Amino acid sequence: MENIQYDFGMIGLGTMGSNLLQNISDHGYRSAGYDLDKAKVENLNQLNQENIHGFSDLKEFTSSLKSPKTVMLLVPAGKIVDSVINELLEVLDKGDIIIDGGNSHFTDTERRFVDLEKKGYHFIGMGVSGGEEGARRGPSMMPGGDKQAYEVVAPILKKIAAHVDGEPTVAYMGERSAGHFVKMVHNGIEYAIMQLISETYEILKRGLQLSDAEIYDVFKKWNDGRLQSYLMEITRDIFAFKKPGENHLLLNDIKDEAKAKGTGKWTSQAAMDLALPIPIIDVAVSMRDLSKYKDLRTKAAEIYPNSLDENNSRKLEINTDQLENAFYFAMVSAYAQGMHLLFAANLEYKYGLSLDTIAKIWRGGCIIRSAFLEDIFAAYEKNPELKHLFLDKNIQENISKSVSSIRKVISEAALKGIAIPAFYASMGYFDNFRNETMPANLIQAQRDFFGSHTYELIGKEGVFHTEWED
Amino acid sequence: MENIQYDFGMIGLGTMGSNLLQNISDHGYRSAGYDLDKAKVENLNQLNQENIHGFSDLKEFTSSLKSPKTVMLLVPAGKIVDSVINELLEVLDKGDIIIDGGNSHFTDTERRFVDLEKKGYHFIGMGVSGGEEGARRGPSMMPGGDKQAYEVVAPILKKIAAHVDGEPTVAYMGERSAGHFVKMVHNGIEYAIMQLISETYEILKRGLQLSDAEIYDVFKKWNDGRLQSYLMEITRDIFAFKKPGENHLLLNDIKDEAKAKGTGKWTSQAAMDLALPIPIIDVAVSMRDLSKYKDLRTKAAEIYPNSLDENNSRKLEINTDQLENAFYFAMVSAYAQGMHLLFAANLEYKYGLSLDTIAKIWRGGCIIRSAFLEDIFAAYEKNPELKHLFLDKNIQENISKSVSSIRKVISEAALKGIAIPAFYASMGYFDNFRNETMPANLIQAQRDFFGSHTYELIGKEGVFHTEWED
Repeated sequence: MENIQYDFGMIGLGTMGSNLLQNISDHGYRSAGYDLDKAKVENLNQLNQENIHGFSDLKEFTSSLKSPKTVMLLVPAGKIVDSVINELLEVLDKGDIIIDGGNSHFTDTERRFVDLEKKGYHFIGMGVSGGEEGARRGPSMMPGGDKQAYEVVAPILKKIAAHVDGEPTVAYMGERSAGHFVKMVHNGIEYAIMQLISETYEILKRGLQLSDAEIYDVFKKWNDGRLQSYLMEITRDIFAFKKPGENHLLLNDIKDEAKAKGTGKWTSQAAMDLALPIPIIDVAVSMRDLSKYKDLRTKAAEIYPNSLDENNSRKLEINTDQLENAFYFAMVSAYAQGMHLLFAANLEYKYGLSLDTIAKIWRGGCIIRSAFLEDIFAAYEKNPELKHLFLDKNIQENISKSVSSIRKVISEAALKGIAIPAFYASMGYFDNFRNETMPANLIQAQRDFFGSHTYELIGKEGVFHTEWED
Repeated sequence: MENIQYDFGMIGLGTMGSNLLQNISDHGYRSAGYDLDKAKVENLNQLNQENIHGFSDLKEFTSSLKSPKTVMLLVPAGKIVDSVINELLEVLDKGDIIIDGGNSHFTDTERRFVDLEKKGYHFIGMGVSGGEEGARRGPSMMPGGDKQAYEVVAPILKKIAAHVDGEPTVAYMGERSAGHFVKMVHNGIEYAIMQLISETYEILKRGLQLSDAEIYDVFKKWNDGRLQSYLMEITRDIFAFKKPGENHLLLNDIKDEAKAKGTGKWTSQAAMDLALPIPIIDVAVSMRDLSKYKDLRTKAAEIYPNSLDENNSRKLEINTDQLENAFYFAMVSAYAQGMHLLFAANLEYKYGLSLDTIAKIWRGGCIIRSAFLEDIFAAYEKNPELKHLFLDKNIQENISKSVSSIRKVISEAALKGIAIPAFYASMGYFDNFRNETMPANLIQAQRDFFGSHTYELIGKEGVFHTEWED
């Protein structure tokens, strides 16, 4: 082996890491990979690409890199990231660049950034979205942290990213843990939209009693319209997928117990710490959790049959156009809640986020890319200080036209016992969001009554307490 | 001052601490109080009760206590608890008992328990509920941690607790941080029920267009029936409360921005860590958060008027009996979600909780005490291993009778734009809880499609991955 000086190093040669290296190589950069697992190193080397080389010795790997050395980690979030960073510090020089490209919790990234900055290393916490396919052909990337270091790696990242209207879906997000925070919220929105699609499937199947083929047609039609999105597109394809020799959808063989890797949960927990409401994401998380209680659900299905209800039919009196409107309304709300969370996090954590830049790079490469992201981008481009998407004129007009449809869908689903908790959450959120006077005055009165927690008065400064009992 | 040997010491002489000391004194025990704030010590001493003495010197305070000394903290949760404990370790002896009676986060209690046990001190993390009035006349107390120490203080705690059917509303909850975990869930349920009451107020006011006096009558009637509870009772009283010389309810002067001290948020976050769904509590937390965005709501109220909807009327076609049924249904669901969380936490954290004991001591003294807690107690007494309240025969029969009413209420509220997100959450939870096959198979298919996260198959062991794209 010659002593080639590689441009980019990758630790973690799973499918994501390997695909990203091939993507980098396609753009003329020379890249080195490292993994503890020798089989993965072997796989990489068997690609036989002259620009890519896999190492199973960490020192050899880092020695092969050009200075300042750039090493990206794609390893499982948590302690493994810390231990790999510690090993790296033994073999890197001050001024070298470490990129954590995994789904690390933003508080870990915050701690690592501060620690590595003190020690003289450049650290970038970068969210990468797009799955394996995205890694290979062009992901959306959300780097945050050391801006100077970002400028060094930006030429490579911009080449390997997806492109929309000729512009790459990567940009510097902001200070410290900004990149991983943005990626976390991306995933929270992803949870919400997946939940909404699954509830739509429930309505189409049980509420409109459509066949799988008819459901395919609905998703296909929607994906050709304003609901076009990556998630809608793969849903359409799932409704066409049969295993060779089989006559039914693979989907129908899959267990109804959803797993989760935690980023949706983190989004909800972080939003609660910021006192920022994202109820659609919250319920998407809790419904995945409920799905795992299959044994309870099976027992409950017996003792709470549909025949409980006066009207034994579960057939909803709605059409698929109303459902499309309802989905649009709820989907907009899911994005709006996520963007609102970014807005609030930016104030609290002083990340220096640009919501227009985030919308811009989400338009391609990532899992939540969609036609609607063009509207989001337009809204923030017009007004980068926009406090909430619902206040954008264009979006306001569009969701206003959908309100009566979602009201009808919810009304019917509630009467007939079809479970659509994320649609419900979008409605409850909207009706309180446009509620100038919420009934929260009663909560404040109760809190003061039982706990002397005080209350505020309309049009008067200060806090007050009353002895409510004689 | 004579060198009286006091039975019980209290650090933190706010209203709660002072009231609790008076309660202890009423039962013939001699108690000492300590506070950094000399005015509070003075206040305590001006009560002129011979059994109570306030100290402003920590050493004098602890020296006045009988051995083993029992010192309870009622100070703000967080770092203050740690610093008070550290000061105490300077003046207490090994074998003495420290009780943290505040709303500490259970993970802090866990850490303190382990630390103090190592150092040779007995530590009890104890939730106290009932507000100031409860502290004075009989709270509900949830001690956990050192069982041996609990046995030492139990005689006092049992006397000062509220009593139901002659039995005190205090009992040993379980190991380590069990007491604070149980109290946290108590508060989570409290958030949910307060949110449901506030949404009911919204329906009565805007949906049924009742006057304050008529709303009083509704809450009064309900509180005389199966919805009897402390929170319903104070709500009724709030709808009768006018300031001297005023002709309108104080309630109507209070700002509609709800505050929170964090225990509801902690409950939701902890449930998410346990992957246990409690969507009504989640939405109660997020709606308090939304209430604080008054400026956004005011703007949104202008651009999303009711006239958006085809039917301009907000009048719901329901009666108050249907609403009572709906409230009952949602309230049961709120308690059921809280109890389910305790069930799951007990498995994960090995607390040794008894759900029947918890229900038993919640029947009196605490903020969520209610007639329905008798049903909960009966359910767990009959079957301490009950996996979910919805599976109890009695409760099943009662909520089954209420299902059609809540369906009607939700259907009407959705059509007319009245915001009832917690009612929605109770419906969505129920309809998925009794859903033997949720649409989560689609979520698993999507996850495998874009991220190779694998899926499980019905009736087949193992996990599987498919290349969904050609």
